[in-house]
Amino acid sequence: MSLLDLLLGRKKNTAATAKDRLQIIIAQERVQSQAPDYLPMLKKELLEVLAKYVNISPDDIRISQEQHDGMEMLELNITLPEPKKAST
Amino acid sequence: MSLLDLLLGRKKNTAATAKDRLQIIIAQERVQSQAPDYLPMLKKELLEVLAKYVNISPDDIRISQEQHDGMEMLELNITLPEPKKAST
Repeated sequence: MSLLDLLLGRKKNTAATAKDRLQIIIAQERVQSQAPDYLPMLKKELLEVLAKYVNISPDDIRISQEQHDGMEMLELNITLPEPKKAST
Repeated sequence: MSLLDLLLGRKKNTAATAKDRLQIIIAQERVQSQAPDYLPMLKKELLEVLAKYVNISPDDIRISQEQHDGMEMLELNITLPEPKKAST
């Protein structure tokens, strides 16, 4: 199973609920004790970048965080709005 | 094995080469045919954001892209510079 299957496959889109989705994962390994923590900054900047390009509301974004063994991971799952239909 | 192990664990840091690392994965599932492709924009904006906060050179960044079955994934692996030692 490729990483891609594992990522998006975990919440398989059923045809009925098929919506465009974006998943952003930031994983950080800090071996140097005084290394800065980039996750909070990247999370803030990423949401700002997304808001510039995509009309999403906070309800469309699920954020989860995981940490163990010197590694931290931030996961953003974004349900994208339906693209505006070309007016006929 | 958690997703976190799978992500960072794939290139296990050996003590000799232990460097701080950042891995960013953007996966996109487009079920609507006319949905925009956000990956190129996010790649550009992410590199700009990183350059603001981290002094990294292009050699420190490996970018790979994978695509199949209506899903696309962009993976950025960044080796972070050693934090400046506090002057004693």
